[in-house]
Amino acid sequence: MNYSAYKNVNLLGGLLREKQELNRKITIHAVWKQFENTGRIGAFSCDWEEGMEQKPHIFWDSDVAKWMEGASYILAKTRDKELEAKIESLIDKFETNQQPDGYFNIYYTVCEPGMRFTKRENHELYCAGHFIEAAVAYYEATGKDRFLKLVMRYADLIDQTFHIKNSAAFTTPGHEEIELALIRLYQATNEPRYLALSKFFIEQRGANEKDGHCPSSQDFPIRSQRTATGHSVRCLYLYTAVSALAKELGDSELARRCQDIFFDIYSHKLYITGGVGSTNLYEGFTRKFDLPNRGAYAETCAAISLAYFCRNLLDLEKKSVYADILERTLFNGILSGLSIDGKAFFYENPLEINVKTNNRLIDAAGTERHAATQRKEVFDCSCCPPNINRFIEEYESFLYDREGESVYVHILAESTFDDGTAHVETHTNYPLDGKAKIVYRGAEFLCVRVPDWCSNFTASSPYTMENGYARFHHPGTVLLEFHMDPVLVEANLNVQNNIGRAALMFGPLVYCAESVDNGENLHALYVNQNLNAKVTFDPFFGANVIETDGFRKLQNSTALYRPYSENFFEKTRIKFIPYFGFANRGESDMLVYFKVKEIN
Amino acid sequence: MNYSAYKNVNLLGGLLREKQELNRKITIHAVWKQFENTGRIGAFSCDWEEGMEQKPHIFWDSDVAKWMEGASYILAKTRDKELEAKIESLIDKFETNQQPDGYFNIYYTVCEPGMRFTKRENHELYCAGHFIEAAVAYYEATGKDRFLKLVMRYADLIDQTFHIKNSAAFTTPGHEEIELALIRLYQATNEPRYLALSKFFIEQRGANEKDGHCPSSQDFPIRSQRTATGHSVRCLYLYTAVSALAKELGDSELARRCQDIFFDIYSHKLYITGGVGSTNLYEGFTRKFDLPNRGAYAETCAAISLAYFCRNLLDLEKKSVYADILERTLFNGILSGLSIDGKAFFYENPLEINVKTNNRLIDAAGTERHAATQRKEVFDCSCCPPNINRFIEEYESFLYDREGESVYVHILAESTFDDGTAHVETHTNYPLDGKAKIVYRGAEFLCVRVPDWCSNFTASSPYTMENGYARFHHPGTVLLEFHMDPVLVEANLNVQNNIGRAALMFGPLVYCAESVDNGENLHALYVNQNLNAKVTFDPFFGANVIETDGFRKLQNSTALYRPYSENFFEKTRIKFIPYFGFANRGESDMLVYFKVKEIN
Repeated sequence: MNYSAYKNVNLLGGLLREKQELNRKITIHAVWKQFENTGRIGAFSCDWEEGMEQKPHIFWDSDVAKWMEGASYILAKTRDKELEAKIESLIDKFETNQQPDGYFNIYYTVCEPGMRFTKRENHELYCAGHFIEAAVAYYEATGKDRFLKLVMRYADLIDQTFHIKNSAAFTTPGHEEIELALIRLYQATNEPRYLALSKFFIEQRGANEKDGHCPSSQDFPIRSQRTATGHSVRCLYLYTAVSALAKELGDSELARRCQDIFFDIYSHKLYITGGVGSTNLYEGFTRKFDLPNRGAYAETCAAISLAYFCRNLLDLEKKSVYADILERTLFNGILSGLSIDGKAFFYENPLEINVKTNNRLIDAAGTERHAATQRKEVFDCSCCPPNINRFIEEYESFLYDREGESVYVHILAESTFDDGTAHVETHTNYPLDGKAKIVYRGAEFLCVRVPDWCSNFTASSPYTMENGYARFHHPGTVLLEFHMDPVLVEANLNVQNNIGRAALMFGPLVYCAESVDNGENLHALYVNQNLNAKVTFDPFFGANVIETDGFRKLQNSTALYRPYSENFFEKTRIKFIPYFGFANRGESDMLVYFKVKEIN
Repeated sequence: MNYSAYKNVNLLGGLLREKQELNRKITIHAVWKQFENTGRIGAFSCDWEEGMEQKPHIFWDSDVAKWMEGASYILAKTRDKELEAKIESLIDKFETNQQPDGYFNIYYTVCEPGMRFTKRENHELYCAGHFIEAAVAYYEATGKDRFLKLVMRYADLIDQTFHIKNSAAFTTPGHEEIELALIRLYQATNEPRYLALSKFFIEQRGANEKDGHCPSSQDFPIRSQRTATGHSVRCLYLYTAVSALAKELGDSELARRCQDIFFDIYSHKLYITGGVGSTNLYEGFTRKFDLPNRGAYAETCAAISLAYFCRNLLDLEKKSVYADILERTLFNGILSGLSIDGKAFFYENPLEINVKTNNRLIDAAGTERHAATQRKEVFDCSCCPPNINRFIEEYESFLYDREGESVYVHILAESTFDDGTAHVETHTNYPLDGKAKIVYRGAEFLCVRVPDWCSNFTASSPYTMENGYARFHHPGTVLLEFHMDPVLVEANLNVQNNIGRAALMFGPLVYCAESVDNGENLHALYVNQNLNAKVTFDPFFGANVIETDGFRKLQNSTALYRPYSENFFEKTRIKFIPYFGFANRGESDMLVYFKVKEIN
């Protein structure tokens, strides 16, 4: 994370700020409680023995580390003794149970002692990476360096084992993460060995016989990669690291590889919600334009890692496309991972729920896999909930950027930016509407992104367009309006399942409709192309809901087959809610893409 | 099978007759060859030993028995010394290897000796049933009773073991079939024990603790069953038997249960092609209106068993609906199981093939199940090919019926019917067109089914309508026309995946379009509601192909998402082929249900 950008920002109001308050009041505590109940917190005592319940799992360390990171971001903004005490108690146990040579991994300490660094797929370095991120965050939030020093000892051991001696059973991690964590550790400590170790992991990938090939990882030499493949989270954590490394090294070839990967996703593999990963089978990317709605995997963590990747791409070059996708996933495919009450989560974020289809089998002989229709408080593999904890507290890091004499506004929010020289105040209800008043001083230029969804933009001052940003040349007050109307958006025709269908968007928000509002059989509803939309703020969602004109296809026969009846429709209104708010009012069908009826 | 109806019919020309010629020239020999190659024929020597290749499988007996039955039907119509010699050689081995007490099952003789009648799910009685059907067919075709007597000894053993002594480890077969075979054996021999044994198996089903519950079978007491559940073939073989038993016993309650099952299928669970079984998971029925296109299982054997069930329902009551569904599956979902060249088969008959979706995974880490896109010459589980062999040779049995002073014409074909008193000659090109000239004498009434697809029927003589049949009262010549135009047919709106889409039909034939004729991305094609159809006979398919007006949705952008463009279409023609002929010209996308564009 670009911590300097983060600490200069004060998020003061609006939807994003409300989600942070929810996180601080509810979600961070809800996740802690589930982690206590499931044994993840207790596991830090490292006293599990064969035969006991709650056997530590290989990725539990990372779940708790992400929670620590998220809690640290809260501490960076607010004094919270309870959270700090919880983190300190975990650090105590980390210190107590860290091995003399610096090693720390609960699973390999109590479940498979003596087997450290032997199984590439066992998330060991992934867990280490998350501890590193947590320690850096805690250090930057509090100034306390105990945890940082503990993880540095561990990082030093990893450096010795993997980089210097090459003595582990594998060379690069099966699940990427530590690569980006080491760069953050380097940025926090200025110790070049950590940058070198990250570079080593990145460049050894796919170049090393010892690793074999794990088909769900990006096991190809990094400089030969052009397309997003394999496990989405692994791919995007890797490229988050590669883009940071490209920036640190000024390596334009690596930067180009990152851009290739991004544009492959952007052009072929991205859900309209900003979700990625079209199959549950390896939680990963599939072929171009393969974007099933009901079968979407679109893991919350994958969307979060896409946002991190976009943040680093913006660090490489200020082009609005990266912020467009960041915004798309931030307001849709990530936010949908959290329930409105802040206590429950989606691991997968499908674009359609069809309860009947999920229950199509009437017989115990067969089972089918369907995405969950209701959020859960904890998962066996509970990576997403603490990832939401930390991501929500990083909102500040996505809003602004400073580069030379320009301050960039990537995403509008009621907020301030102040880096000591430049000062920016943004007043806006975004994303409820597209109006903003921005006051800036101390920097020559203010560059405000004109979002991809906006076709009509007005400003009170003259500006020039540059890479998708409106660049203002005179400090002072700028009144902006990104005119926001409900619009129907269609996918490329190569996304065959969506041909003839469209999704409703309003500004950056994707909308969906649920049977709880619209009755059974959402597939029989057609959106009227002439929307005649009514936009209303709904406090339950903290966002606008939209009603449009539509049609319901009718039938006057119970026959299974009959001559096609051309035009047997009744007029109706369709109620849409923000996609991020689906599945919060009991089990319900949900649909994003609706058939469109052209007006005769 | 109603053998008397069968032997009175002479099928003389047209599509069905051509398929019989293909079967006799090609298919019956192709299946034999594959069965030789895979060891199924050799297995009859019963000399397999552990360590040898081609270990007999539990259902191999039934594969070969069905072939024997099919070959016997050919012998009933044509002298064919080669086929007869093959059957005789199998009977020789059956006789040699039949155990002293009458038992015959290759698998339990050579693979698991001593384990007979211990495993309900192991298809043992299913194999026995197919041998019984084969023996009855061979006896009725040739008058030779050697095989019949051998299987009677086996049937007697089964009667002793299951019915009299109840000494087997289970009471009713896991895979139904023997129930219907025993009724045929009873009809051929007049031995009431066989009818009683069939009744025993039917009535013990779901009533017996010893059987436990196999969730893929209809393990509920027969008189309490109202819906079609579980494994489609098992369900329909069972109800084929139940309907025959209801007729034999005059049991109106059993008859009503059969009608309940039929109408549950007819109203909720039937593909437009006459296929049944919406899931591969237990090869079975699912919930009402669950009829996925690409995921259709629609096993060829399930469609065949539905045709048998319909034939028996017609035996119970002469209502055209049974013949409608019989015809639907005969011309579509069954015929699609056989390639145009007569050598290859589909086990599953989906309503959509999308090659790209089948290959959506780019990574070896995951696998998905998709129906085959090309027919195969043999399957590991090769039940369907010999079922096609025998079904095609039974066409005669579906065409006519005699009841009292009425001769019924269920399905039009160039053919004669003569039962000694009544004589009917039908001259027609059906299903190429809907015209027929029927001459009848020797019966008071001629009842010709008015098909469900026909909304415009004309006849040269006066008639009365009765249960869907046009009843003519005066022997002589009747000229009929069932006016046949290409029509679009839609499914009930509860079939959510087909809302707004329609299938093209012409008479009883369902049509589909393939990318090999229409280019990539069939989902971008819309049928013009004003079809402007051109119907042309195509000798490759032996049936009509149809061109209609249509539209292709276009895009002028490569963007993954963009504002919905209402009306960006080009006019095109769409070429449709009979559904039964899909996948005969290389790997190709295929679609039955097309979006319809209403004319503005």
